[in-house]
Amino acid sequence: MQYGMSTEEVLVVRDPGVAKLLADETRRKILLLLRVAEMTPQQLAKLLGKNVSSITHHLSMLERKGLVRVARVEVRRNLVVKWYRAAAKRIIVSYELAEGLVPGSEHIAKHVEEGARRAAEALAQIGVKLGERELAEASQLIRHLYLAMREVYERYVTRCIKCDDPWGREMLLKALMAVSLYRRESFLKAVERLAQLLGDVVD
Amino acid sequence: MQYGMSTEEVLVVRDPGVAKLLADETRRKILLLLRVAEMTPQQLAKLLGKNVSSITHHLSMLERKGLVRVARVEVRRNLVVKWYRAAAKRIIVSYELAEGLVPGSEHIAKHVEEGARRAAEALAQIGVKLGERELAEASQLIRHLYLAMREVYERYVTRCIKCDDPWGREMLLKALMAVSLYRRESFLKAVERLAQLLGDVVD
Repeated sequence: MQYGMSTEEVLVVRDPGVAKLLADETRRKILLLLRVAEMTPQQLAKLLGKNVSSITHHLSMLERKGLVRVARVEVRRNLVVKWYRAAAKRIIVSYELAEGLVPGSEHIAKHVEEGARRAAEALAQIGVKLGERELAEASQLIRHLYLAMREVYERYVTRCIKCDDPWGREMLLKALMAVSLYRRESFLKAVERLAQLLGDVVD
Repeated sequence: MQYGMSTEEVLVVRDPGVAKLLADETRRKILLLLRVAEMTPQQLAKLLGKNVSSITHHLSMLERKGLVRVARVEVRRNLVVKWYRAAAKRIIVSYELAEGLVPGSEHIAKHVEEGARRAAEALAQIGVKLGERELAEASQLIRHLYLAMREVYERYVTRCIKCDDPWGREMLLKALMAVSLYRRESFLKAVERLAQLLGDVVD
C-alpha cells in the first residue's frame, strides 16, 4: 500500500476491467469527491446516502485497481480509520479503449457509438433536420471527431504536465490540441462534411 | 431563498464581481464538492480543514451571488442545520469577462494573458525553442485560440442542454465546437501560424 503519496495530475486507464469500474455512478461520485479532499468511508457514506459497507466495498475495488489511495491512517479507540484520496486529479479512459482497439473494450466502444447516435438525434432539437441516412452519417462524423479529440488530448495532456502552472497548462493543452487536430486531414474532412449537414444552424 | 430547486446544468457568470469569488481556492473547492453532494458547513469545514465560521462566510458570499443554494434545512436540538448544493453542475466565467470586454473584468483578462504567457514559456519544456519575439507571438496566439474556444463553448453549451443524455450532450458539444471553430478564418490563421512556430514537435 502507498501511504502519503502525492496525487498525480493525470491517470490514463488502459485496462478495460478498470474502465468498467468508472461506469458505476457511485464510484464516479466517490472519485470526484476524493479529488478535492481526503475522506473516510464513513464521511463518503454520509455524503452519498449509502451505507458504510457498500462504500468500503467500492473503495477497496478502486484501491485494488489503483484509482484511489489511502492517504493516511489513524487509530481511534482501537478502530483503524483510513482517509482516501483519488490517485489523480484527472482520471481518463484511454483513447484505445474508447475506440474498442483492445480486447475487452468492445462495450466501451459501443457506449461511444451510442452516445454519438444520441448526439446526432439531439441535432433535431437545435433545428437541424436530417433524414435517416444523414442521421447515420452525422452520428459517424460526431464519433470520429470525438475520438480524434480524445486521442490528441491523451497524447498532449501528459506532455503538458511540465508546465507547473495549472492555468498555463490548460491553455497550452488546448492550443496543442487545436494545432494537432488541424494537421489531420481526416479530422478536417469530417468537420467539413458535418458543417455541410448542419447548414446555417452552426456559425 | 430557494429551497429544493434542482441543480442546473450550466451557469455562466457574467458579473466580474461574481467571477472574482472563483479566484479563491477554498471557494473553488467548496463548489467542486457541492456539485457532487449536498453538505453542511460543518461537513465542509472538516473536509477542507478550515473552521466552520470561515466556511459559513464563504457559503454566504457564494449564496448571495447565486453560486450555491440551500438544498434543505433541518432543526436538530434547536439548531438549524443547512445543506448546501452548487447552483449548477458547471459554473463557467463568461467569455466576455475572460476577454476583458466588461468594465471591471480587466483583472480576469490579465489572468488569461499571464496564463498564455506561461503556456508559451512551457513550450521550451516540450522541445520548442523560441526567441523572445516568437515567444510573445506564441503567447498571443495561444490566448487567441483559448478565447475563441471559450466563446464557442459558451455559445453551444447552453444549446446542447436539450440533449437529455449527458454523454450524447458532451459529444454533440465537442462536434459543434469543432465545426464552429474551423469555420472561423481568424482561428484557422492562428492555428496555422502557431503550427509554424511549433514545427515538428506537434504532430
